Amino acid sequence: MWRGSARVLQKNIRRNLVSRAVKGGLTALLLKTGQPFQYNVLLTGAAYSTKIQPKLTAESYPSILRNPNYKQLAADDVSFFKNVVGETGVLEASGSEDLALFNEDWMRKYKGQSKLVLRPKTTQQVAKILRYCNEKKLAVVPQGGNTGLVGGSVPVFDEIVLSLTQLNKVRSFDEVSGILKCDAGVILENADNFLADHGYIFPLDLGAKGSCHVGGVVATNAGGLRLLRYGSLHGTVLGLEVVLPNGEVLNTMNALRKDNTGYDLKQLFIGSEGTIGVITGVSILTPPRPKAFNVSFLGVESYEAVQEVFVQAKQELSEILSAFEFMDSKSQELTKLHLKDVAEPLTEKYPFYILIETSGSNKEHDDAKLEAFLEKTMESGLVLDGVVAQDETELRNLWQWREMIPESSQAGGGVYKYDVSLPLKDLYSLVEAANDKLSEKGLMDPEDATKPVISAVGYGHVGDGNLHLNVAVREYSKDVEKALEPFVYEFVSSKNGSISAEHGLGFQKKNYIGYSKSDQEIKMMKNLKDNYDPHHILNPYKFL
Amino acid sequence: MWRGSARVLQKNIRRNLVSRAVKGGLTALLLKTGQPFQYNVLLTGAAYSTKIQPKLTAESYPSILRNPNYKQLAADDVSFFKNVVGETGVLEASGSEDLALFNEDWMRKYKGQSKLVLRPKTTQQVAKILRYCNEKKLAVVPQGGNTGLVGGSVPVFDEIVLSLTQLNKVRSFDEVSGILKCDAGVILENADNFLADHGYIFPLDLGAKGSCHVGGVVATNAGGLRLLRYGSLHGTVLGLEVVLPNGEVLNTMNALRKDNTGYDLKQLFIGSEGTIGVITGVSILTPPRPKAFNVSFLGVESYEAVQEVFVQAKQELSEILSAFEFMDSKSQELTKLHLKDVAEPLTEKYPFYILIETSGSNKEHDDAKLEAFLEKTMESGLVLDGVVAQDETELRNLWQWREMIPESSQAGGGVYKYDVSLPLKDLYSLVEAANDKLSEKGLMDPEDATKPVISAVGYGHVGDGNLHLNVAVREYSKDVEKALEPFVYEFVSSKNGSISAEHGLGFQKKNYIGYSKSDQEIKMMKNLKDNYDPHHILNPYKFL
Repeated sequence: MWRGSARVLQKNIRRNLVSRAVKGGLTALLLKTGQPFQYNVLLTGAAYSTKIQPKLTAESYPSILRNPNYKQLAADDVSFFKNVVGETGVLEASGSEDLALFNEDWMRKYKGQSKLVLRPKTTQQVAKILRYCNEKKLAVVPQGGNTGLVGGSVPVFDEIVLSLTQLNKVRSFDEVSGILKCDAGVILENADNFLADHGYIFPLDLGAKGSCHVGGVVATNAGGLRLLRYGSLHGTVLGLEVVLPNGEVLNTMNALRKDNTGYDLKQLFIGSEGTIGVITGVSILTPPRPKAFNVSFLGVESYEAVQEVFVQAKQELSEILSAFEFMDSKSQELTKLHLKDVAEPLTEKYPFYILIETSGSNKEHDDAKLEAFLEKTMESGLVLDGVVAQDETELRNLWQWREMIPESSQAGGGVYKYDVSLPLKDLYSLVEAANDKLSEKGLMDPEDATKPVISAVGYGHVGDGNLHLNVAVREYSKDVEKALEPFVYEFVSSKNGSISAEHGLGFQKKNYIGYSKSDQEIKMMKNLKDNYDPHHILNPYKFL
Repeated sequence: MWRGSARVLQKNIRRNLVSRAVKGGLTALLLKTGQPFQYNVLLTGAAYSTKIQPKLTAESYPSILRNPNYKQLAADDVSFFKNVVGETGVLEASGSEDLALFNEDWMRKYKGQSKLVLRPKTTQQVAKILRYCNEKKLAVVPQGGNTGLVGGSVPVFDEIVLSLTQLNKVRSFDEVSGILKCDAGVILENADNFLADHGYIFPLDLGAKGSCHVGGVVATNAGGLRLLRYGSLHGTVLGLEVVLPNGEVLNTMNALRKDNTGYDLKQLFIGSEGTIGVITGVSILTPPRPKAFNVSFLGVESYEAVQEVFVQAKQELSEILSAFEFMDSKSQELTKLHLKDVAEPLTEKYPFYILIETSGSNKEHDDAKLEAFLEKTMESGLVLDGVVAQDETELRNLWQWREMIPESSQAGGGVYKYDVSLPLKDLYSLVEAANDKLSEKGLMDPEDATKPVISAVGYGHVGDGNLHLNVAVREYSKDVEKALEPFVYEFVSSKNGSISAEHGLGFQKKNYIGYSKSDQEIKMMKNLKDNYDPHHILNPYKFL
């Protein structure tokens, strides 16, 4: 590992960063996303514990009642569905099938009571199902890979689960334009592996890639690890195939890179979390796969310095900058406790750390740009210390100091987690404010085991204005909850931030949208919902 | 100028490509866009002639009648508006003001009969105006820089012109994140110059930049010259301030790079051409300004070779590729006739030519990448010949062979123009089909002056799948029109293309949307229009 001043960099970092995630089921998922859990006032079990968590069943929400307008599932409904999708496409609770996998999210935080899972194989089958449900007023929850973090993809009561897993074919790929068309149920990693064989890359990556669906990431407008480089799905998705609640099919799959003929209808469904239509097909523009990656880990004096380094990185690294993450000192202290045997990247301690990743088409050029950037920022005194990964192992190790923060935050007992967007200048002020608040209330002491809070740490995607605030606790406590809520949401709201940067509203945040959206916006959203789904059969009890 | 094989490149190409456009009013506009005119079946005047064109007034459209539901403007209406925007904010046809500039588009193709122009200075004034117009059923046409190409920004009958020219302030710029917030009426070039001072660039550029408004390019979802590099406005626009027809204000200006709390309402207004709301403010993410530009001009054997070179350019030039344009041989023959004194880039003739532009943060690296790319593609025989500009003059000269095609196509008498999107593999087939059709009908001969058609040429933005088909004629003729229409639209439709890649529908193409959009899509669009603008007061007689 290179240290201290910019020197010639070796060139043996391998092509694909995917392997940097520690493999092994859930852990890989946790490490890769960096923010697997959401704070929920109702959940007081230890999020990372291996024992079964308390689940949020309907009984947990006494204020939410099953909407009596929805029909109860009957035998003739099931017969109808069997006619549409065949015997194998229907899973019944009464049968030998265990529906737990469909009723629970992967964190096992939320649990519904659906008695029926439908697994259509074609868009036409989805259309027939929805038309029927709309007529009969049967509530439906569309479900992709079920990897969401806000309880959006599992039933709350007895909604029928409409699983897209069987709609899983790549439809076409244009080697020249890079346009991929696929079914909604294609697993993201499969899509990306398919593209890798053709020299392209899926313009979005996230920890759940081995399970989540292409349609699901579009329905939730997932952010993930490549947003800084490739932008949001609103820009990269070219077309969608969507079944509307009434069974009509909106097909914009043939859309091209440029098409200015009317309102861009597909945009409404990107991030709609399955509440106004079921996405069955996705057309997306994919960029060429980068051939070279670099990772550098830096120490700086202040959050102001983090911002300055970010500006300089955008200027100097410009088109090859693919990640710019920051971590505060407390987050690294927690991580050090957890990563006992792993050598720290820097010998000295600094108030803030920065992880920079570059990716480009020419390793030599990328190395030279990074070297020049580091020389400049270190000579000016902006960057106090730094290392650059020399091989893939080092690269993975450096990423660990960022990616292990969530697990480390929780290791002392539990963690309250917030995932918010804030204007960059205000990004860290939430962490400072939360620290002040917890200190004021006498709730926090890293050394005193009688205090509930160990530490409140901040880190996140500077490039995206996305902060993760983790409050590491020895135990969950009503006092800590009261100190943090609605304080955090009010703080975010006062800075015109967003209470959900990338995870969506789902079930968890449906009551908090008012902190991010105006009454006018909420009115217009409800109007759209009523317009497209007048009987509210799609994904009820959520979103708005 | 470097010729034939890849050699060391000099480094004196200056920073800003803007200056490559030949300056001087309209001509600059024409040269820069490359596609300033649209074919219109009603327009038979010579498009580029300096004499006044036949205008398309209401009398030209006997099938379109003024909607009698709209109120006729009365004195008390004008009094109300004067109270809202002051005396100076109201221009009346009855006063000393000449409203021709507001009633006509810049091509002088379309001409309305508005008697009143309102120039509000604040969003609140816009809101008061629209609320009043909505109550009184006064029709309104929102107008930005009035540089559109499809007659979308001028009245058809007596609609009130709502000019955004006085809403022209930059509201804020964040040096760290690159987020620009400005009024809708800020001129694009002013916004870009402002950004240049801060080391950033507006993620969209087009020939009309000296006149068009930021709000206008968003309302029409303009494409322009930087789309290949920075993507569409659906990805870069972060928030909008929009006044709805009922006077309510939708404000999403505080939106951040990431915000997943509800439907992305602003997307509906991007490309809505002023039919469901008036954009008064724009928040947009701007990228760092590139420091280096290169331009190369290549000759290849076939359209298949064009596509292969494009794939290799994406792989090799990857993150620095900023334009990939192709031109067929006939387009260059026409251009040669026009650019008599300018030396041709290549000594030999080739069936197809390619113009490649790179832009990046390091000239040396960009030169090396381009050199390696050219060596590879020439050694393999894919590229037969090529030059690279050595300074800004050469760079500008090379661009001329692409940008002068529209003017050259028209120089022989007139031109029928189509701007379409097609799948890349089919992009050139439209030109071949049009040539076949015109030959079959005996309408075309470059040498025989008794034939109406000189040549049918094709060129365009390969990177965007955007073709320009120009049919150069000696004179406009019903026979040629009949040969081309609806043939061209049917051809585009059969290949699942778009009849308007980047110019929108406006007045010109409102009857052709069916060639690009399904009944289902059109139904959903009409539903949105009815929902947001139930009295249809905004920009009537257009779009749908």
